[in-house]
Amino acid sequence: MAKTWRICLLLLRFLAFSATLASVIVVTTSHERVSFLTISIEAKYTNSAAFKYFVIAYSIVTVYGFLVLFLPQESLLWRLVVALDLVFTVLLISSISAALAIAQVGKKGNDYAGWLPICGQVPKYCDRVTGGLAAGLIAVITYIVLLLHSIHTVLDPLLLRKN
Amino acid sequence: MAKTWRICLLLLRFLAFSATLASVIVVTTSHERVSFLTISIEAKYTNSAAFKYFVIAYSIVTVYGFLVLFLPQESLLWRLVVALDLVFTVLLISSISAALAIAQVGKKGNDYAGWLPICGQVPKYCDRVTGGLAAGLIAVITYIVLLLHSIHTVLDPLLLRKN
Repeated sequence: MAKTWRICLLLLRFLAFSATLASVIVVTTSHERVSFLTISIEAKYTNSAAFKYFVIAYSIVTVYGFLVLFLPQESLLWRLVVALDLVFTVLLISSISAALAIAQVGKKGNDYAGWLPICGQVPKYCDRVTGGLAAGLIAVITYIVLLLHSIHTVLDPLLLRKN
Repeated sequence: MAKTWRICLLLLRFLAFSATLASVIVVTTSHERVSFLTISIEAKYTNSAAFKYFVIAYSIVTVYGFLVLFLPQESLLWRLVVALDLVFTVLLISSISAALAIAQVGKKGNDYAGWLPICGQVPKYCDRVTGGLAAGLIAVITYIVLLLHSIHTVLDPLLLRKN
């Protein structure tokens, strides 16, 4: 039972790592060039501060997720991993929230501020970024599940165990 | 010593509650009307999905922060509060990240997307929202401090205690 559980957790960690990696790759490689008369503009992630933050945060968590995969089961560092999971989950949530806020304006625009949606001009870029953010969302959800498991094990907030 | 510590934590909780409340009040009451020829536009928080999310999230956490102030010291619910602190801190971080991403575009614009900054047109609105977000940031930092304290007490991730 304990072994099945461990394999399950390892698979979840692998899923989290793959999702962050996929997200970083998809968002960083998304670009599309548009030309208006003499002006040529390239849509890419570095054009937006929120997307840059997203890529940096997700890259850091990808490296962390990779390292944790090789941590031996008996290591004392697992207690630290619970705290690090928390920090990095917060980083993921913060960066994806910022990126989603900008993506929402990119998709729908904002009439009041006079910001036009850009997805009509750069549909391919838009679709790829949407894909990247979807992978990012999967990563966030996986890390939240891992974190809930840790909290359940360590905190027992619903007082299911007697103490 | 334990009593000083408790008063300190209670003061931190009161600061967190005040900061979220101030943030909600300032952002919801910020509005400024601008007219271009025949068109009149009012800048207010409901114009942006990210700001609406910010106000809803901060309102929820304000109510929570108020209720926690009256929780008796001996209550068994304090273990649940640790987990709820985590959930609500995440909610605060997510909503302020989204709001800051939009505020950054509002302030600086985005040349590539052709989104012009709006702070030149509605400076008062901009200043008030900046103030509200600053209060929101204080709230987030206070909740993170409270959470770190809980983690330190419950998890002991740096293995400072022998077990």
